[in-house]
Amino acid sequence: MTSNYAGLQSVIWSGDKLDLLDQRLLPEEIIYLPLTTSEDVWEAIRHLKVRGAPAIGISAAYGVVLGSRDEQTLEDWLGQVNKQAEYLATSRPTAVNLFWALDRMKAAAASFVQKGLALEACKAALLTEAIAIQSEDEETNRLIGEHALSLFKDDMGVLTHCNAGGLATAKYGTALAPFYLALERGITLRVFADETRPVLQGARLTAFELQQAGVDVTLICDNMAGMVMSKGWIDAVIVGTDRVAANGDVANKIGTYSVAVLAKAHGIPFYVACPLSTIDLNTPTGAEIPIEERNAEEITEGFGKRTAPQGIKVYNPAFDVTPNEYVTAIITEKGIVQAPYDVNLRKLFD
Amino acid sequence: MTSNYAGLQSVIWSGDKLDLLDQRLLPEEIIYLPLTTSEDVWEAIRHLKVRGAPAIGISAAYGVVLGSRDEQTLEDWLGQVNKQAEYLATSRPTAVNLFWALDRMKAAAASFVQKGLALEACKAALLTEAIAIQSEDEETNRLIGEHALSLFKDDMGVLTHCNAGGLATAKYGTALAPFYLALERGITLRVFADETRPVLQGARLTAFELQQAGVDVTLICDNMAGMVMSKGWIDAVIVGTDRVAANGDVANKIGTYSVAVLAKAHGIPFYVACPLSTIDLNTPTGAEIPIEERNAEEITEGFGKRTAPQGIKVYNPAFDVTPNEYVTAIITEKGIVQAPYDVNLRKLFD
Repeated sequence: MTSNYAGLQSVIWSGDKLDLLDQRLLPEEIIYLPLTTSEDVWEAIRHLKVRGAPAIGISAAYGVVLGSRDEQTLEDWLGQVNKQAEYLATSRPTAVNLFWALDRMKAAAASFVQKGLALEACKAALLTEAIAIQSEDEETNRLIGEHALSLFKDDMGVLTHCNAGGLATAKYGTALAPFYLALERGITLRVFADETRPVLQGARLTAFELQQAGVDVTLICDNMAGMVMSKGWIDAVIVGTDRVAANGDVANKIGTYSVAVLAKAHGIPFYVACPLSTIDLNTPTGAEIPIEERNAEEITEGFGKRTAPQGIKVYNPAFDVTPNEYVTAIITEKGIVQAPYDVNLRKLFD
Repeated sequence: MTSNYAGLQSVIWSGDKLDLLDQRLLPEEIIYLPLTTSEDVWEAIRHLKVRGAPAIGISAAYGVVLGSRDEQTLEDWLGQVNKQAEYLATSRPTAVNLFWALDRMKAAAASFVQKGLALEACKAALLTEAIAIQSEDEETNRLIGEHALSLFKDDMGVLTHCNAGGLATAKYGTALAPFYLALERGITLRVFADETRPVLQGARLTAFELQQAGVDVTLICDNMAGMVMSKGWIDAVIVGTDRVAANGDVANKIGTYSVAVLAKAHGIPFYVACPLSTIDLNTPTGAEIPIEERNAEEITEGFGKRTAPQGIKVYNPAFDVTPNEYVTAIITEKGIVQAPYDVNLRKLFD
């Protein structure tokens, strides 16, 4: 199937380096950073130059390639692959795709050695594995978009939070995928994008990429979500996620939980879109998901100017957990899952 | 009763002009603007140099004095008082204290003329009326604080939204008054301040004035309110209001409604603190309260840096309405009122 998707790609492998769209500079500047080492990749993930669970996983996979390509023996190479994977896993604590992609790279490397491939063949095969992670993500997202779009009708208002779009993934995004597919098919959806403090991914990225594509998008502050729901403008909420626990609890960008509670209070369905790689059956509930706390300056001087008094105490969790009771459905590449999640999520992996 | 209140005063009459603390520059700069004309006052209200319903009302009262002081005949003076009051009423549409203060100034002027006062005596008496509005506000707020504090216990966590503090009023504030009184009495309250996008009154003003006074305050983004509630850190919410309708519906800074819904979902009481002058029995319900929509730039480039794409569609209501069913109690200088508000608010005025 051909696509009119005209979004920017956030992660591009260009033969010998990783060109990474610096998302911190959007929407003002479109600048690709040439990353040539795993340290570059670690730093880019840590400092949110790349963000979005799938895009982080893809970048980290290329990071393993970059960090191991100079080894001269098979043994050194395999050791380095494992070492770099461990190192890159320390860049962000919450996104399970990061660990999933790194584990996949480690397993792939081990299998290449086991199969008896020579050093250069191993290196080439490992790069192919990273490219496969990226291209599979694109196909996965298109399928997620198809399933999600089946839940929406022409002229519906849909609220989204943070950025689970093309910029966060290989292409299409997860939560934003149905908007791109709707556009291709002449279905009009009125999208409302929460700006998503403190880092403003909704304002800087979601509003940007949807506007670029020609989707009808209205930007609001996070604290306006309740009001637009009460006005009857919102028929559904759809968000991405950084990790889904085995019981259907969902970790996503801070503020998602508030949106979910508001949606429930207004009788509005709350959908979570994600690839299977984001579902972590080894995490029993949301209580076991580590929540990254970030520095105070994101809040106190996030707009390039100090907006809070010096020395003020700040609480800045990057994520929150939405309990499964607020989740109407989880939309994956394998279809739409509803409660009971502890049973139905597991079935996806059978 | 003496007080240790060490907050900044936002509105100071200095004999022949109004010195107004420019709240847009806080917390970085503490600058008082000398206002000498009613146009200065109109412009200061319009552009949020002064904000907070009581402080707006007080400023507007002085604006009437400034706008009529040069008249040479009693008839011209009375005409000008009325004209300036009409003019100043156009500066902001939502805050009922503005209209209340202006009506009071008009009525006072008419009564002075009726009593047969000479021109200079009328002018002096009108200034005294404006000063009375200010000093009554201070006493009112202290009483609101006393009543509110009766609802709080040592070591409680209390969330507030926007700024209904000393900066918004003559002194003490409304919603923040109990925090100042608690401090004077050695009662520890852990205050959480929503930053309150788009203009960040919570970050710039509430966090600032409570920190200055020595109150234990933690700044969060608006979208973190749900999470901190779910963690059990919040025992009560208290906010100010720009207008209370006769049925107890409450208009306040955008985001208040979301906080109220979240509080109810977590079983947390939601209190509204305000003087009687904010209760408008002539407004039957919240549906009749005009909601000011402000310009897109407050969201897209609120702090000197563009944070959203050029040309993006924005919805930027300055206020929202919280239906009475979410309001646990309304705290006034005459005591604490609970539902049924249509009956009990009216009793306050008997």
